Amino acid sequence: MFLTRNEYDRGVNTFSPEGRLFQVEYSLEAIKLGSTAIGVATSEGVVLGVEKRVTSPLLESSSIEKIVEIDRHLGCAMSGLTADARTMIEHARTETLSHDLQYDEAIRVETVTQAVCDLALRFGESVDGGDDDDDHAMSRPFGVALLIAGVDEDGPQLYHAEPSGTFYRYDAKAIGSGSEGAQQELQNEYHKSLTLAEAEQLVLKILKQVMEEKLDSKNVQLASVTPGAGFKAYSETDMAEVVGRMPESET
Amino acid sequence: MFLTRNEYDRGVNTFSPEGRLFQVEYSLEAIKLGSTAIGVATSEGVVLGVEKRVTSPLLESSSIEKIVEIDRHLGCAMSGLTADARTMIEHARTETLSHDLQYDEAIRVETVTQAVCDLALRFGESVDGGDDDDDHAMSRPFGVALLIAGVDEDGPQLYHAEPSGTFYRYDAKAIGSGSEGAQQELQNEYHKSLTLAEAEQLVLKILKQVMEEKLDSKNVQLASVTPGAGFKAYSETDMAEVVGRMPESET
Amino acid sequence: MFLTRNEYDRGVNTFSPEGRLFQVEYSLEAIKLGSTAIGVATSEGVVLGVEKRVTSPLLESSSIEKIVEIDRHLGCAMSGLTADARTMIEHARTETLSHDLQYDEAIRVETVTQAVCDLALRFGESVDGGDDDDDHAMSRPFGVALLIAGVDEDGPQLYHAEPSGTFYRYDAKAIGSGSEGAQQELQNEYHKSLTLAEAEQLVLKILKQVMEEKLDSKNVQLASVTPGAGFKAYSETDMAEVVGRMPESET
Amino acid sequence: MFLTRNEYDRGVNTFSPEGRLFQVEYSLEAIKLGSTAIGVATSEGVVLGVEKRVTSPLLESSSIEKIVEIDRHLGCAMSGLTADARTMIEHARTETLSHDLQYDEAIRVETVTQAVCDLALRFGESVDGGDDDDDHAMSRPFGVALLIAGVDEDGPQLYHAEPSGTFYRYDAKAIGSGSEGAQQELQNEYHKSLTLAEAEQLVLKILKQVMEEKLDSKNVQLASVTPGAGFKAYSETDMAEVVGRMPESET
Amino acid sequence: MFLTRNEYDRGVNTFSPEGRLFQVEYSLEAIKLGSTAIGVATSEGVVLGVEKRVTSPLLESSSIEKIVEIDRHLGCAMSGLTADARTMIEHARTETLSHDLQYDEAIRVETVTQAVCDLALRFGESVDGGDDDDDHAMSRPFGVALLIAGVDEDGPQLYHAEPSGTFYRYDAKAIGSGSEGAQQELQNEYHKSLTLAEAEQLVLKILKQVMEEKLDSKNVQLASVTPGAGFKAYSETDMAEVVGRMPESET
Amino acid sequence: MFLTRNEYDRGVNTFSPEGRLFQVEYSLEAIKLGSTAIGVATSEGVVLGVEKRVTSPLLESSSIEKIVEIDRHLGCAMSGLTADARTMIEHARTETLSHDLQYDEAIRVETVTQAVCDLALRFGESVDGGDDDDDHAMSRPFGVALLIAGVDEDGPQLYHAEPSGTFYRYDAKAIGSGSEGAQQELQNEYHKSLTLAEAEQLVLKILKQVMEEKLDSKNVQLASVTPGAGFKAYSETDMAEVVGRMPESET
Amino acid sequence: MFLTRNEYDRGVNTFSPEGRLFQVEYSLEAIKLGSTAIGVATSEGVVLGVEKRVTSPLLESSSIEKIVEIDRHLGCAMSGLTADARTMIEHARTETLSHDLQYDEAIRVETVTQAVCDLALRFGESVDGGDDDDDHAMSRPFGVALLIAGVDEDGPQLYHAEPSGTFYRYDAKAIGSGSEGAQQELQNEYHKSLTLAEAEQLVLKILKQVMEEKLDSKNVQLASVTPGAGFKAYSETDMAEVVGRMPESET
Repeated sequence: MFLTRNEYDRGVNTFSPEGRLFQVEYSLEAIKLGSTAIGVATSEGVVLGVEKRVTSPLLESSSIEKIVEIDRHLGCAMSGLTADARTMIEHARTETLSHDLQYDEAIRVETVTQAVCDLALRFGESVDGGDDDDDHAMSRPFGVALLIAGVDEDGPQLYHAEPSGTFYRYDAKAIGSGSEGAQQELQNEYHKSLTLAEAEQLVLKILKQVMEEKLDSKNVQLASVTPGAGFKAYSETDMAEVVGRMPESET
Repeated sequence: MFLTRNEYDRGVNTFSPEGRLFQVEYSLEAIKLGSTAIGVATSEGVVLGVEKRVTSPLLESSSIEKIVEIDRHLGCAMSGLTADARTMIEHARTETLSHDLQYDEAIRVETVTQAVCDLALRFGESVDGGDDDDDHAMSRPFGVALLIAGVDEDGPQLYHAEPSGTFYRYDAKAIGSGSEGAQQELQNEYHKSLTLAEAEQLVLKILKQVMEEKLDSKNVQLASVTPGAGFKAYSETDMAEVVGRMPESET
Repeated sequence: MFLTRNEYDRGVNTFSPEGRLFQVEYSLEAIKLGSTAIGVATSEGVVLGVEKRVTSPLLESSSIEKIVEIDRHLGCAMSGLTADARTMIEHARTETLSHDLQYDEAIRVETVTQAVCDLALRFGESVDGGDDDDDHAMSRPFGVALLIAGVDEDGPQLYHAEPSGTFYRYDAKAIGSGSEGAQQELQNEYHKSLTLAEAEQLVLKILKQVMEEKLDSKNVQLASVTPGAGFKAYSETDMAEVVGRMPESET
Repeated sequence: MFLTRNEYDRGVNTFSPEGRLFQVEYSLEAIKLGSTAIGVATSEGVVLGVEKRVTSPLLESSSIEKIVEIDRHLGCAMSGLTADARTMIEHARTETLSHDLQYDEAIRVETVTQAVCDLALRFGESVDGGDDDDDHAMSRPFGVALLIAGVDEDGPQLYHAEPSGTFYRYDAKAIGSGSEGAQQELQNEYHKSLTLAEAEQLVLKILKQVMEEKLDSKNVQLASVTPGAGFKAYSETDMAEVVGRMPESET
Repeated sequence: MFLTRNEYDRGVNTFSPEGRLFQVEYSLEAIKLGSTAIGVATSEGVVLGVEKRVTSPLLESSSIEKIVEIDRHLGCAMSGLTADARTMIEHARTETLSHDLQYDEAIRVETVTQAVCDLALRFGESVDGGDDDDDHAMSRPFGVALLIAGVDEDGPQLYHAEPSGTFYRYDAKAIGSGSEGAQQELQNEYHKSLTLAEAEQLVLKILKQVMEEKLDSKNVQLASVTPGAGFKAYSETDMAEVVGRMPESET
Repeated sequence: MFLTRNEYDRGVNTFSPEGRLFQVEYSLEAIKLGSTAIGVATSEGVVLGVEKRVTSPLLESSSIEKIVEIDRHLGCAMSGLTADARTMIEHARTETLSHDLQYDEAIRVETVTQAVCDLALRFGESVDGGDDDDDHAMSRPFGVALLIAGVDEDGPQLYHAEPSGTFYRYDAKAIGSGSEGAQQELQNEYHKSLTLAEAEQLVLKILKQVMEEKLDSKNVQLASVTPGAGFKAYSETDMAEVVGRMPESET
Repeated sequence: MFLTRNEYDRGVNTFSPEGRLFQVEYSLEAIKLGSTAIGVATSEGVVLGVEKRVTSPLLESSSIEKIVEIDRHLGCAMSGLTADARTMIEHARTETLSHDLQYDEAIRVETVTQAVCDLALRFGESVDGGDDDDDHAMSRPFGVALLIAGVDEDGPQLYHAEPSGTFYRYDAKAIGSGSEGAQQELQNEYHKSLTLAEAEQLVLKILKQVMEEKLDSKNVQLASVTPGAGFKAYSETDMAEVVGRMPESET
């Protein structure tokens, strides 16, 4: 009875003979089942955009929160199991707040990203008690990826955080079910001198291409993080305005 | 010996190779076995309605509690394993009370929904001790879904909370064994300008359609949450009155 | 190797693909192996009756305690693994006592029933320590069902509590190996205007029908909970008297 | 691969589909492998008798302790894994002592029996620490049954305590490998008006019938609990005397 | 797939369907693999003797410690996994010392034997912490048996303690790989009036019969516990002397 | 059903019959999947070099941190699961800092390497609580190897630390996917009298040989630890300069 | 499906039906894979010698530490998983130090050996917390054997400590991959009147015979423990000198 690779993927945190961690790889599949999210960093700020899957006309689309504020100068978009993301974001907020209090300066975007990734890495640990409620270790990897956007002393930045605890900085990054095509398009269209307004339109154009539903101001959500205004989720009016600005051929 | 997908669904909280969490998916099946519950939000307030399965004429139908008060301005209907719901509701009550004490203001409907969902998400964790008796983590996902109705500064609202920890706001939502047909009917009939009285009749009409038993004032229960009266479970007299008001053809 | 439903029933607290909790369902089988117990609620009070399986003439039938007092105005009958019931009853007594002390009023019958069911629901949890000896969580569901009878401000009441943590109020309810036939008979014979004396005879008559042994004053036990006398287990003299009052054709 | 009943009996504390607890049932088998023990209650007191398996002529038969004192007015005989019994008896002694201290009255025979059974019921629990050394929960059911004999305000009494946590009061009871035949004989011979001396002879006569070895004053042990003398293990002289009193035909 | 008895023996502490504890039975096999140890009790004192397996001429035979002192009036010989014995003996020493301090009297031989057996019984328990380093529970049964020899107010005594937690007093007892033949020989040769010197020669003679190597003063070790001298391990000189005293035909 | 070696590799920390620890061996495979890292020690200082896999032109290569500072005089390069390395490096930093505080002297390179290896060795332990957040034991071996470079009173030194907890000092060492060829080349080219500048060019030359992508100043990173300057990660300008200095034939 | 012996070797600490502990036996295999280590005790002191496997010319052979000091008068050589040995040696050092402090006398060689073996015996225990960092129990047996050399009031001594927790004193002992041939050679050559210088040459001669590589002053390491100088690891100069002294025919 020779065992196949499948035998190794049930231990939540054990290596296969090839040195792979299957539960982490499978969590990436959960993200590929998620709705598409895109981030684009410009010198004027970072734009985040997500697809909202409005499965019923009676569903209030504003309650689909796939872009959230972490702090005044920090926000994130997510794809995958969004309930999992709440734990990560709560952790990011706590870290941010305690950094502010301790050092009296805004946390760097990379630092908050690393804090979230350190939490992600700790799955499978048995943890004693829960004196720190928003910090408990999961029994499996998180099933969600984050695009963390922020502004700090190094200017606007975009980070991608994975369930494996790995994170990298990107100029532009797409995650979720449409990420493959979207990332290709980002590579084609992105350049360093994009304005924030151009980035808005780029995100919308690419979301439109990868979404099955026809894009409108209800089933996508944009947000930006800029040096001046910090994190700003686009209001319904904002959304209507930017969608309205899309070229005819693109809507 | 190649393993099939079934092998992955026994770990309470592990990913399958496709990125799925089977125990969570199976808990949704428990809800599909439950009696039907419906919520309808109007500008005058939210109406909740549930089917009661009175399995014996000697069973006191009033002891089938599938709609309960959380706070003066908050209530919920449930479908699935109702014993599981007690833990969630007790948690909601504790959160609500401690929010009131801490901030001296009524908790928002979304906040209490998220608190319940955060608890739902924590299944499978090993928890040390039980100093907080109504807050202990389950060893499996909850087998129940909630429709949480409330009124806060944003007016009357209806939320749907799932075992996965996911929640969305709805204008109108049906859960339980008859939910598929009921939700379709809600989409056909719902409009933003419904009065509370019209919503009562809509809920009763749809419950009647999906119930196997003939609807009467004993085997359904209604409740409402309104800005004026807060949460109100309909008394036997109330129930007799609204059922009596149903058009001939519908009873 | 496709797994069958049997594979899912070994985890004490996991869902099957159909959303079922097999260990809970199996615990109901333990109850079906138990001796029959019957409760009948009247406006004068509640009558409880149980079959005693006197497996040996040398066994002191009075030591088969299947009806016990919880408090002056509360009692219960059980069917299934009676050793399991001791934990539940001890819990009920503690809750009752602490309620009395805290609120200076008698606990409601529904409240004590819910307390017992909340304990039942907690099986499979790992619990730290045992500072509260009569309150420890089981590693499996309880294998016993209770008929809880009591009198409170709403008058005499009868509740049925299951291992699943579910409870309902009944006018009359039978549990245990003879429950199917007994419940049918209760539906045929029960009416709201029964006197306590008529309820006694009804319970005895039905026990007689479902018992394999010939009913006598030793192998059945009755108790009542009335507004005036509270819980009263029938003495040997009482039992002889009520059994003697049975119609010829029924003994 | 359909699983058979055998699959269910390895979880120490899970139900089979038929509602059975196999580990408890298997522990009863351990008792059936044990040496025979008999208890007979009379109005003058209770007599306990056990077979001793003296496997070697060099084995000091007095060190085979299958009858032990719990308190001045309480004793017990055992069958099965006698090492397991030490934990139960130590628990009984502690309970008895603390009852004496707390209430300044002798513990009732039923109360001490229930305390032992409550401990038996707790197997399979995970227990934190061992501040109370004689009270720790087993990881399996106890493999021993006890006959607890005592005298309290209700006179001489005999209880039988099982690994399942079940206990009943008996006029006369046999346990262990010869229990089936012995119990039948007890039913034939027992009557309420037996004197203590007659009970001694009855116990010896029945032990003689079920033992493979020829009964002598070394391979059986008697004890009595009487209102006057309390617990008394028979000395070698006592044993020689009562064995000598047996009718010719019986030795 | 019917499971065989082998399936039951992997749970460290579960019953087989026949009521057997396989891990305990297997631990007895570990003892049967051990070197032979013999104890003989006389009215003058107890003699202990063990075979030493000197597997290499470079091995210092005095470092094979299979007979050790517990206290001035207590010692023991062992067979099986001798590393396991250290935990038991350390426990015996602690118990002995604390008894001395608490009661200001020497501990009885039976009492110390029972303390060791109570520890043996506790395998498989999960224990919290290790504040008491010499007292921690094993995750498996001990793989060693002890012959505990001592003198107390009842004179010289010999006890045999097993991994199962069972203990009995013997006039003379052999354990280990040669125990079967040795015990038979002890039964043939032992009588109550043996002198200590005769017991020494009896132990040596029997060890000689069961050992594969030719007996000499290096590969056996004797010790005695006498009322006068307490525990005394024989020095090299003592050993040479008693071995020299053996009859020609026996060496 | 004879089991194959594969059966032994699932327990995270058990021996196979051949005395192997498979999970540790598999973790080495994770390292072989990693990007190549090289260290070269000279009398002037140690040079570390790593390949960066820039998987997308939009990925900011500076955020791929495979060389990090531990302390002013200590740094390390890594290969494998870089998220795992964060825990090890955080541990190294804590140890270094606490050593400085306690002894008021710089920690030795070997001491910090051993501290990291001691942590690596502790996988599979169950640890209670997490009062020391950067020190928690993993449930599997670390999937990363480190090249630790430093300067202490013994001059510049290079250590290689493995998931097994083993560490050795090297003159020059390569790890990761290209390590086999790279190590061979190091053996051919290394000599004790290399200057730091020569070591820089040697590291670059070998990385160039083993990398699939064409080497440029963005996809490799160098760092050095020298007695004068301590740890220094090469800036973009530094990198451009040293890459520019490579012989024509090598770029 | 009859299970084979292989089924028993996966529980880290359970008996096979033959009374064997397979994980302990497998750990001995890990030692047989290790490099050879030899100890020789003389009246002038103990000599320890080990083979170093210098797998690369760039590996600094002095960083292969297979002989280490425990205390001024105590040292040890090891074979097997050397990372495991660090835990044992740290424990030995702590015990030694605390003995010195507590009793103000040097610890005996046997006492420190037993302390290490007691730790080795405790694998598989679950331990709560880690307040004592160098003392935590392993989840598997140690995969290393030690030769502990020391001088105390009984003169120079050599002990062999195994993963099973067993230890014996030897005049001369070899462990590791070449141990079989080496031990045979030790038996042939060893005599009590060896001088320390002769022991050095004997150790070198035997290592030379069992090593695959040609012995030189880099790939072996010697140390001695003498009454005068205590523990002394041979410096490079010392090693060159003793290797130079080897007879022509032996190098």
